[in-house]
Amino acid sequence: MKLPRGFLASGVRAGVRKSRPDLALIVAEKGATAAALFTRNRFPAAPVVLSRAALSRSRGRVRAIVVNSGCANAITGRPGMEAARRVRRRTAELLGCPPEEVFLASTGVIGVLLPDARIRAALPAAVARLSSGGLDAASHAILTTDVGPKVASATFRANGRRGRLVGFAKGAGMIHPDMATMLAFVMTDAEVPPDYLKAALRRATDESFNAISVDGDTSTNDTVLLLASGARGAPRLHGAADAGDFERALLAVCRELAWRIVRDGEGATRVMEVLVRGAANERDARLAAHAVATSPLVKTALHGGDPNWGRILAAVGRSGARLSPARAHLAAGPLCLVEAGVPVSYRERDAARIFARELVPITIDLGVGDARARVLTSDLGHDYVSLNADYRS
Amino acid sequence: MKLPRGFLASGVRAGVRKSRPDLALIVAEKGATAAALFTRNRFPAAPVVLSRAALSRSRGRVRAIVVNSGCANAITGRPGMEAARRVRRRTAELLGCPPEEVFLASTGVIGVLLPDARIRAALPAAVARLSSGGLDAASHAILTTDVGPKVASATFRANGRRGRLVGFAKGAGMIHPDMATMLAFVMTDAEVPPDYLKAALRRATDESFNAISVDGDTSTNDTVLLLASGARGAPRLHGAADAGDFERALLAVCRELAWRIVRDGEGATRVMEVLVRGAANERDARLAAHAVATSPLVKTALHGGDPNWGRILAAVGRSGARLSPARAHLAAGPLCLVEAGVPVSYRERDAARIFARELVPITIDLGVGDARARVLTSDLGHDYVSLNADYRS
Repeated sequence: MKLPRGFLASGVRAGVRKSRPDLALIVAEKGATAAALFTRNRFPAAPVVLSRAALSRSRGRVRAIVVNSGCANAITGRPGMEAARRVRRRTAELLGCPPEEVFLASTGVIGVLLPDARIRAALPAAVARLSSGGLDAASHAILTTDVGPKVASATFRANGRRGRLVGFAKGAGMIHPDMATMLAFVMTDAEVPPDYLKAALRRATDESFNAISVDGDTSTNDTVLLLASGARGAPRLHGAADAGDFERALLAVCRELAWRIVRDGEGATRVMEVLVRGAANERDARLAAHAVATSPLVKTALHGGDPNWGRILAAVGRSGARLSPARAHLAAGPLCLVEAGVPVSYRERDAARIFARELVPITIDLGVGDARARVLTSDLGHDYVSLNADYRS
Repeated sequence: MKLPRGFLASGVRAGVRKSRPDLALIVAEKGATAAALFTRNRFPAAPVVLSRAALSRSRGRVRAIVVNSGCANAITGRPGMEAARRVRRRTAELLGCPPEEVFLASTGVIGVLLPDARIRAALPAAVARLSSGGLDAASHAILTTDVGPKVASATFRANGRRGRLVGFAKGAGMIHPDMATMLAFVMTDAEVPPDYLKAALRRATDESFNAISVDGDTSTNDTVLLLASGARGAPRLHGAADAGDFERALLAVCRELAWRIVRDGEGATRVMEVLVRGAANERDARLAAHAVATSPLVKTALHGGDPNWGRILAAVGRSGARLSPARAHLAAGPLCLVEAGVPVSYRERDAARIFARELVPITIDLGVGDARARVLTSDLGHDYVSLNADYRS
């Protein structure tokens, strides 16, 4: 897939991982306006600490993104910070830009120092291979246990001009971002003011990447970055007023990437869409949806295609969300399983058919209000155990 | 094992489960003083709702405990409540006591109505087989996916007399009580005032059953019950002042049962003891320990015997507990892995040897205070997935 105007990309082998591409480079030829959301983990990785500070020093301008897989460079103390700084400095030298316009991201094993010499040695090749068709190589180089690359795109119209949005991501690790790094990079050729860019990214993330998790529940490295190059001939947005179609396209790209991250969860064979409604407030709705989405008992039953709805309501019951046991409802797709707190008689075969689908839609009504939340989760099967019981070797 | 004086027990087949004993009966011949702790799940099962109310009506007197496995009788609405009441009434008739002195507990599948006719039909046989040696049969009848029965005992001295404590429990389901029902029944021949009995039970539970979980994180049926028969010749306690040795013995019995529940977690091959210290307060210490103990990434690494400590600190980092990244420490047994936020160089072989033990001791210092918490957790392996992917069939 071609990048939006103003962007180039490449992906190369730096030798951080044994024999797979592990270094991605994205360059905004004339720089780009950037908005980013970072992990809230209290052990933020070195690239997160540096990139957050750099964005503020560069006033939201980004010239390049350097992403490595194979090493998270998290909980590596001052040596980790220095290794990341050396990568940043070398990239800035090669591209002729200030170091604070180089944005860093890493994913892989935690607690291992970044082998920055290998990355610095591979950077000239990454620069040499930059092209507007380099997204494929870049999207492969950021993967860890992902089954495959995750790319999405959309077009939009504003001021009579047509703009594009292209994003790529990595996830896996049981889809729940607290379980493994989630990185997502989205680029557009539009010109967008920084404040509005940030607001739009937050709104889109709440409905996509955060709908496969919950605020605060993130790994050491999670990062979502949105870049706007403002290329010639592309739309110029001024704010929410003229950007309706841009926001729709942004949400579509983020949702598609989020869906792929869940669908591609480690060992996943099936996805459950948990919709909680009737909650007293949005926090309660999220608490309940999150409890269901992270319950190992629910996730293993989902793996077995077993319509064991008791586990779903038991998870809701312990979530802390206010509910009325006598007014609670539960449905799987169109099939009502619990009405007003009492099991409905249904044909086991009908329930089993819904639980055998690739996407299992579950609706829970707490019976106490109007707030709602929606979370996607994948199943927990043998492949997940195999992948994670000895990930490092 | 013999029961303490004043108690009789039996275990029979009622046909709730296909071909295993599924009905346990405990009788305090002359009644007993009781203290109980129940689940905080917002969908409490019918036996929990009834027993809580009955205890308050009987002013903490209990004559009998009826426990069935195979059906949790949770989220079964009014019909479930009526089924449980019929079991209670029949038991009271057979024993000649008021219904509110019959304590009920159930464990098994959620959302299935209790087949109370089968239980009522089996009650006369359960009464007929009551004996002071019936603990073995009773402890088997309450099991679900448990590998085997869990029984513990201890003796204590007070006022120059010797007393006994005997307890039995069921757990499994990934050890975390929110994941499956945990039932525990402890009996003593001592005479103990009701208020003190409750206080002692709460203290012992906090250090045992709650140290494999966290407040509020419980299934629909979890129950811990302590009965004191006040048999002739047994110690008479008046309160904390003369009950030091009783509390020690009670904690020992509860800890032993809690340990067996964890060790016997579904598919478990290994247990991790997570000690968090240096926390700003006890709540933070528990948050951090709980995040580690429930992380699927930590539990699968434990299964693989993989000293992947990055996952441990990543879980601590997302727990919400306050910490100082620059002052955090992590050790596995005597081996320091992270000091002042930086990985220490150690021999991988030494770490692997500790992670291959049956009990893996992990100490995490958050570096910001003096509070601490300790949680036990089991590993997550293939057997857990197999057991839970199709539990109902």
